[in-house]
Amino acid sequence: MWRVRQTVRATTLIAPLALRKQLGRPLLIASETFQHTGSFKFRAAYCAALSSNSSHLLTASSGNFGAALAYSCSLLNKSCTVVMPHQSSAVKVAAVKSFGASVELVDVSVVSRAQRVAELGAQIDDVDVLSAYDDLRVIAGNSTLGEEIAELEKSGQYDFNCVVAPMGGGGLTAGIIQGLRAKGSKLEVFAAEPALGDDGRRSLAAGKIIANDFEPATIADGARTLALGKHNFEILKTGLSGVMVASESEIEEAVRRLFLNQLKCEPTGALALAALIGQDQDSMLMLHSPRYKPLLVVSGGNVEAAVYSRIISA
Amino acid sequence: MWRVRQTVRATTLIAPLALRKQLGRPLLIASETFQHTGSFKFRAAYCAALSSNSSHLLTASSGNFGAALAYSCSLLNKSCTVVMPHQSSAVKVAAVKSFGASVELVDVSVVSRAQRVAELGAQIDDVDVLSAYDDLRVIAGNSTLGEEIAELEKSGQYDFNCVVAPMGGGGLTAGIIQGLRAKGSKLEVFAAEPALGDDGRRSLAAGKIIANDFEPATIADGARTLALGKHNFEILKTGLSGVMVASESEIEEAVRRLFLNQLKCEPTGALALAALIGQDQDSMLMLHSPRYKPLLVVSGGNVEAAVYSRIISA
Repeated sequence: MWRVRQTVRATTLIAPLALRKQLGRPLLIASETFQHTGSFKFRAAYCAALSSNSSHLLTASSGNFGAALAYSCSLLNKSCTVVMPHQSSAVKVAAVKSFGASVELVDVSVVSRAQRVAELGAQIDDVDVLSAYDDLRVIAGNSTLGEEIAELEKSGQYDFNCVVAPMGGGGLTAGIIQGLRAKGSKLEVFAAEPALGDDGRRSLAAGKIIANDFEPATIADGARTLALGKHNFEILKTGLSGVMVASESEIEEAVRRLFLNQLKCEPTGALALAALIGQDQDSMLMLHSPRYKPLLVVSGGNVEAAVYSRIISA
Repeated sequence: MWRVRQTVRATTLIAPLALRKQLGRPLLIASETFQHTGSFKFRAAYCAALSSNSSHLLTASSGNFGAALAYSCSLLNKSCTVVMPHQSSAVKVAAVKSFGASVELVDVSVVSRAQRVAELGAQIDDVDVLSAYDDLRVIAGNSTLGEEIAELEKSGQYDFNCVVAPMGGGGLTAGIIQGLRAKGSKLEVFAAEPALGDDGRRSLAAGKIIANDFEPATIADGARTLALGKHNFEILKTGLSGVMVASESEIEEAVRRLFLNQLKCEPTGALALAALIGQDQDSMLMLHSPRYKPLLVVSGGNVEAAVYSRIISA
């Protein structure tokens, strides 16, 4: 992991004074918004691109993973194709293209992203197809954040004793757990997911992966996943201490509170805080137990100005 | 300064990828938005409160210095009174009160802030009256940022060779220069001020303090000062390498660009970037000389949601 650690930006530790006062407890934030390309996904994408023997990488992503992989490939002199839904915003498409990647727009009502990826995979020479959240290299990349958190804990300079991180496909939480354990840390890790897509909680309770019936229409677009990744689930089923869920209004409230604490983030990035300030039973337990001093992971910052303005002005 | 260094949060270093690509040059940001109370003013306020022998501190401030002093006094078990214009926003008044300070609202059309401060100073026992930007203790507090920058330079890990910082009364720039020189750094320091209040540039050119005729109506409310402070000018007149000015639209453009680079800041905080991307002659010279690799100081993050939404949505 040392080559990944050398290239990723260390997470940004923030002590949100107003939030701590409001919640009446110690609270720290590890922000990945200042990571390269604005989200933790760079850790995964760079690790995957670095470990791949292929000269061309291919993925389907409407969001942060596409930009992260495109930038990673530009650093490693590899070529890159990102399959995006044809209704993706021009800003997101431009971001991916700005790093020199090819963008393939698909009309998902005609052909699925997976189908188009398979077609392209057959056409391109020396290509490696990457999943944004279910690949051992993705978990390994994200484990660098767990390693950093373990080092912060070991330094004794910071007052936290558990981690809460957003969960969609589970790549981030699985990576954090893997990185922590690799460094010998026993920190408890909790996941936060949108109530609209609570497949993670249901899967953990059932002991097997249970998929949502359809992509959840949550504002936390990084968590619009059908199910946990298989590799992730293997780690999460024993590694997670719990799953908290947040309603849509709690997610927006968390974005607003982070704005008031100077941190711009995307809705998915606010999931951990949303769950913590929310009314979910598990969240209430944690918030009311003086035992927990959470480190909240804010996973990314990429949000369109119009969406952000609407949320903070509400 | 060690007790101040122990308490202030170290500045947050950000490498804004998209901005670097747009400007085609190395560029780093030292953000003070995550400083306690959301701006660099905490450095000055805490240092002043710590060095004061009085048990009660009194200041006039409509903005960041008031909240910073109120919080500093709460940490040091001192009492605090902040004189604010009666039209101050409820949010700002509430922020100061939340730290246990008394707020005195004055109708500045009837009595000036300075008058009211003088009246209160005569009434309160064991009181020390502080200027937000013209006090040696304020410069000393801000010098901790200069010390940090000198240490970052010395570490050799970061690619910058000059500093650009916002200037209103000149407390920040004077402090940075003092801190750098104390640590033996010869880094050049440039100031950025709103074109609407370019008294700093005129003062430096004339070799004496020239005041604006009235408080400049700039959106950069931290730079709505009549003139440079006397103590600051003594340092700035030989210590500054230049003053760049930014128009109002350049300031708003800079706030937008920082939003796109994940950094929420107030308009005053964006002054350094505004000047750098602007059309001012000195800015052009710096931007076009490959010699300069700037570290931009973003001084604070406190901006109301309505103002911020309008700017980023433009």
